[in-house]
Amino acid sequence: MKLHPIWKPYPSISKELTNTLNLMEKSINLKNKSVEQAVLEMIHSGGKLLRPAYQLLFSQFGPEQDRKKAMALAASIEMLHTATLIHDDIVDDADLRRGLPTVRSSFGNDVAVYAGDYLLVCCFKLLADYSGSLKSLQLNSRSMEKILSGELGQMDSRYKLDGTVEQYLENISGKTAELFGLSCFIGAYESGMNQRFAKKCGDIGLNIGIAFQIIDDILDYTQDSQEIGKPVLEDVRQGIYSLPLLYALQENTAALLPYLEKRENMTDEDTQKVFTLVHELHGVEKAQALASDYTSKALTAIDKLPENEQQTKNILSTITKKILNRTN
Amino acid sequence: MKLHPIWKPYPSISKELTNTLNLMEKSINLKNKSVEQAVLEMIHSGGKLLRPAYQLLFSQFGPEQDRKKAMALAASIEMLHTATLIHDDIVDDADLRRGLPTVRSSFGNDVAVYAGDYLLVCCFKLLADYSGSLKSLQLNSRSMEKILSGELGQMDSRYKLDGTVEQYLENISGKTAELFGLSCFIGAYESGMNQRFAKKCGDIGLNIGIAFQIIDDILDYTQDSQEIGKPVLEDVRQGIYSLPLLYALQENTAALLPYLEKRENMTDEDTQKVFTLVHELHGVEKAQALASDYTSKALTAIDKLPENEQQTKNILSTITKKILNRTN
Repeated sequence: MKLHPIWKPYPSISKELTNTLNLMEKSINLKNKSVEQAVLEMIHSGGKLLRPAYQLLFSQFGPEQDRKKAMALAASIEMLHTATLIHDDIVDDADLRRGLPTVRSSFGNDVAVYAGDYLLVCCFKLLADYSGSLKSLQLNSRSMEKILSGELGQMDSRYKLDGTVEQYLENISGKTAELFGLSCFIGAYESGMNQRFAKKCGDIGLNIGIAFQIIDDILDYTQDSQEIGKPVLEDVRQGIYSLPLLYALQENTAALLPYLEKRENMTDEDTQKVFTLVHELHGVEKAQALASDYTSKALTAIDKLPENEQQTKNILSTITKKILNRTN
Repeated sequence: MKLHPIWKPYPSISKELTNTLNLMEKSINLKNKSVEQAVLEMIHSGGKLLRPAYQLLFSQFGPEQDRKKAMALAASIEMLHTATLIHDDIVDDADLRRGLPTVRSSFGNDVAVYAGDYLLVCCFKLLADYSGSLKSLQLNSRSMEKILSGELGQMDSRYKLDGTVEQYLENISGKTAELFGLSCFIGAYESGMNQRFAKKCGDIGLNIGIAFQIIDDILDYTQDSQEIGKPVLEDVRQGIYSLPLLYALQENTAALLPYLEKRENMTDEDTQKVFTLVHELHGVEKAQALASDYTSKALTAIDKLPENEQQTKNILSTITKKILNRTN
């Protein structure tokens, strides 16, 4: 098991993330060993572990430094994230994730449904075992509710040619940013900081999450299918029109319409044409500008965080810059 | 909204069950109104509400009579149950449940995945809001874990011709009985009874749940498709061999093999033949005898419960006899 190289310069966080993965592994105990194996492979597939990492980093601000608890709560966040990925892959009919076969493609949708449910329940179990209070669980469950409500909201927007930037931001807030926000909030709150401070940390996470998702959506228009580990613009075929395409549509709906109206019957040439048009109509450029706005908001707020022994503030700033300037 | 007639003789429980349904309805708040409507219809589709009812009844034993809390926790159990039904219908490719279209058949598997997830999270939210302690949530989440692990376990047994009664009992313990057990346990525990007493109540629930599932499985062999609201022996086609068929297989595998080995390609005549063979090979009879054993265990334990003002013991006994002698 190898951690993503992004964590190499930080031995202390690296160690805690490794322990977090081990703790996740220990919490998963299925009789069906091949399903268990698939879930574990997914967990160890080399993602950046951003959500548990942010949670661990924000947990360094408070007076309560129970690291075992911090790692268990970080594991619970990553479990929740993994559960939603397994279920997302059912909804998206996805065969690959991070270049590996998805649970649904290896075992079928039926196993993937229950495997995701099982991880959700494992997440609850860790939260119940390690949260400091019922209050923290209450805040946590409200955030989870927003995440699921966001997933269902996105489905409503499918194939909409007149989607607005606001709707897009609302959808990705639910789908992605809320979980980043929750990680930062719970990290601070469960380390003994008050709700006001934790809320500020949560807002940093929200802004990071929004920038992160916009950049992820931009990558669909800047990478080829091999680099990204899934077919080019598969999402567009499925009616998910992300920010670069929305901006391009605002500029010239008529140019894009002949391709988009074929919906799931779009050919590879059609998606290639959409790919080119989105660039020509400045969709990528404008999306990059909006991502920069959210990145700046996050970095400005990080800069105002208190200093501490572990230099958390500097690490947060460096990591955030790194992941939000990513080209892969 | 009409409650199932089984509750008519008990106005106090009827009122609490109605309030429980209302509370569930209030907890569900989705932007996608058609999905919300489908989930609400499912909740109001006239099931017997046995799990929340047992929870409410067992909550009458303790010294803490906070009925609002009892109803909220009953709502959480029914939410969990509904979530698993919505996901079960994906796994089983089911078009009908209680004679109504399933969420997956009305909205597709993708919506059904997230709708079930959303209900799971709502369940968690109610638990976090109303449970008396983190301890109770910890016990609850362990029970949920067993339920999901049981669902995955059942998939392992598909198309197995040499399944044992023990494996069957283990699978239905996870799939059905655990939730009945949890209802009775949490009802008693959250009303302020000690863990030892609550465990006894949980065991009563487990026995009721096992008998209930055996009887449910027997109904596949005693009702026609119209009565039961789904095609005859659809489960067998999908490789789920329940107790009557297991007993028949133990008696004469060779007789059944030519039909079963066609798996999902079994014709209606094949299932009809299996139906007849299971009766001839005494599968139904033996399954009825085992269900009676579990029913007796539950009734004997109910009989030993303490008396109280609400006559809970009598109600439990009457209701349990009624549901475990059901022909529909």
